[in-house]
Amino acid sequence: MSQQFAAVDVIRTKRDRGELSDAQIDWVIDAYTRGEVAEEQMSSLAMAVLLNGMTRREVSRWTGAMIASGARLDFTDLPRPSVDKHSTGGVGDKVTLPLAPLVAACGAAVPQLSGRGLGHTGGTLDKLEAIPGWRASLTLPEIRAQLTDLGAVICAATGDLAPADKKLYALRDVTGTVEAIPLIASSIMSKKIAEGTSALVLDVKTGSGAFMKSLEDSLELARTMVDLGTDAGVRTVAVVTDMSTPLGRTAGNALEVRESVEVLAGGGPADLVEITLVLAREMLTAVGIDVDPADALKDGRAMDAWRRMISAQGGDPDAPLPVARHTQEVLAPADGFLDVDAMAVGVAAWRLGAGRSRREEAVQAGAGVELHAVRGDAVRQGQRLMTLHTDTPERFEWAAQALDGGFTVSPTAPAQVPLVHQRVTA
Amino acid sequence: MSQQFAAVDVIRTKRDRGELSDAQIDWVIDAYTRGEVAEEQMSSLAMAVLLNGMTRREVSRWTGAMIASGARLDFTDLPRPSVDKHSTGGVGDKVTLPLAPLVAACGAAVPQLSGRGLGHTGGTLDKLEAIPGWRASLTLPEIRAQLTDLGAVICAATGDLAPADKKLYALRDVTGTVEAIPLIASSIMSKKIAEGTSALVLDVKTGSGAFMKSLEDSLELARTMVDLGTDAGVRTVAVVTDMSTPLGRTAGNALEVRESVEVLAGGGPADLVEITLVLAREMLTAVGIDVDPADALKDGRAMDAWRRMISAQGGDPDAPLPVARHTQEVLAPADGFLDVDAMAVGVAAWRLGAGRSRREEAVQAGAGVELHAVRGDAVRQGQRLMTLHTDTPERFEWAAQALDGGFTVSPTAPAQVPLVHQRVTA
Repeated sequence: MSQQFAAVDVIRTKRDRGELSDAQIDWVIDAYTRGEVAEEQMSSLAMAVLLNGMTRREVSRWTGAMIASGARLDFTDLPRPSVDKHSTGGVGDKVTLPLAPLVAACGAAVPQLSGRGLGHTGGTLDKLEAIPGWRASLTLPEIRAQLTDLGAVICAATGDLAPADKKLYALRDVTGTVEAIPLIASSIMSKKIAEGTSALVLDVKTGSGAFMKSLEDSLELARTMVDLGTDAGVRTVAVVTDMSTPLGRTAGNALEVRESVEVLAGGGPADLVEITLVLAREMLTAVGIDVDPADALKDGRAMDAWRRMISAQGGDPDAPLPVARHTQEVLAPADGFLDVDAMAVGVAAWRLGAGRSRREEAVQAGAGVELHAVRGDAVRQGQRLMTLHTDTPERFEWAAQALDGGFTVSPTAPAQVPLVHQRVTA
Repeated sequence: MSQQFAAVDVIRTKRDRGELSDAQIDWVIDAYTRGEVAEEQMSSLAMAVLLNGMTRREVSRWTGAMIASGARLDFTDLPRPSVDKHSTGGVGDKVTLPLAPLVAACGAAVPQLSGRGLGHTGGTLDKLEAIPGWRASLTLPEIRAQLTDLGAVICAATGDLAPADKKLYALRDVTGTVEAIPLIASSIMSKKIAEGTSALVLDVKTGSGAFMKSLEDSLELARTMVDLGTDAGVRTVAVVTDMSTPLGRTAGNALEVRESVEVLAGGGPADLVEITLVLAREMLTAVGIDVDPADALKDGRAMDAWRRMISAQGGDPDAPLPVARHTQEVLAPADGFLDVDAMAVGVAAWRLGAGRSRREEAVQAGAGVELHAVRGDAVRQGQRLMTLHTDTPERFEWAAQALDGGFTVSPTAPAQVPLVHQRVTA
């Protein structure tokens, strides 16, 4: 890290469609983390990266430099092989909740360091915090002990992983530079690689409720992340899955915990069960465990692992989940076939109080949207389509506005969309 | 200015190759000037503008918003028609010095609000400050009185013209966003339009010593600025002139004053006289004065105007000019035809002390480069080609490095380059 550069020369290189050298990348990330490269310099560089792109070598080095900015965990000495999953986020995407205990029940260690939600997609920690007593913050020895004993931990990321990414993400958020695939990929992968897992399965969502709306962008993000993991020695697979309609039948914290428990009990909506099993199989294959996770759902081992995981973090798996104080029904306006837009439901759930618009806001555990019918279902006029849940009934109107045009009942059935679009491997 | 926007939405619009609305532009410039839009937001917007461009309407509105950020002068009530000239800057470009009194002597009012130099091109105020007693700072009543009495004033711009531009320029300088033609054009034109001139002649330099190296970029800048002036109701013409070799035979403050006085006395280098007359004719035509400025050079009227202009600002036109304490000769290495590169001479003069590298630095009045032969001259081995002037002889070696490869003596004459490349009108 001895070589020095002028920030403006690094910016100009990318602006003029050149490739940044390894030394330039190492320097600019380190100098930015130390505050020597100013926020306004990093933001013009981020915009140049967004518009002019980065090569595989550049993104890989950029990711490495962000990892080098902080601590790095190592789980290679655990008695089980470790494998992690990351979803780019979607409406009703509670898959982490049943998946981590399921894969642990099959013999792997799943160190699921997660975040809170901001905007229309929920956060895994927000969901689990709906369980009375459950705590998100664990020390590193607690994480290791829980992975050794139970094989599954879902908790908050420790603050010292990839601090450069934390600083850069906050900057991108206010400078219109979030949507750069190299920066999204390196942000996700720097944290995941720093977590020290030996294998990683990525669930890249695509469609209206996803961060990436087009299949093309989703595939590019998946490819970039698989390359980054592979270059860093992590066995990485991505599955591009549909997020044009909500996953499962609930969006909201306690509502999603309840649905996750249904899956662990061997029930739950078919689409949620399918995605959970697809990802579980990828995770187990990635670490060489040849068992069928469907068995662990059927015979109760996954549920056992869930109960132990929740208890280990202070939660009571038998406590009743919070329920919102107010509900309102949404009825079918006509006879016909239903279609539901993921983004509309996500925004409605967020407006009802399930999500936050500022980092320091609290979420309502009981708030959200419950779907009684899903895409493709034949419905009758006046039939109950959704229940909206909130503690603050003045939000119903605002949520209803989000749903206006967000679901349709038509004489013809909507086109069928595959749940799993594509698999991307190294 | 009542409409509010989110900065990130304005950035995204330009990032995604959209057009900014008038209301968005008005808001972002005003909010940036007030500090509500952060530096890191304006820098990512500037990079998006650099890479995605702006339409004529957008640049025009952007310029208007920068003008609206500060005060605006008005010279329409003067007894003479006002006309201004702006050069994008070049090595040895001292044309403003003879031009302003020349055009004033022909009956126009020339309010030449100028700047100091930074980098390899000198600043008009730095040059005139080589004259003992001359002062750059005038009050607005002093400017008006001098324009009424003499017709010419060259002085520092008042601080309250286009403050948005001042802030934005400082930001662009450190974020790799200087080289955006819409931003360069609006920066120059916001100040010139705010100065309240009724007509404007632009000297857009092209070549190694110019800010725009390619004729294509120079023409685009000229076209953009002519459009901006025209849209703002200012009669605007641009002349694209060569800056691949120094203009005249001197680069440095007192050296350039001496050469300017030679032109005013009816002598001086042919290229400098030609550019001065080309621009004077454009300026006079723009305000409908049908006289030949060559006559005013011959009969001493331009020299009279110069002497009165210098005296009015406290300068002594008869005082000996400062002379550097040390000189060093550069000799021809062989027999042949000389070619001289503008940038090399500009950097050498700057390194000798004629320019500054930080805004707060002082310049040496006597420092610079004097050319004894110019592009195309046949020279003999050992003949004196240049004299380097400085008060700090330890700089000779550093200046000589800048000239290494910056001039050539070859068996064949260099290709002829036209002095005036193109004229751009509304």
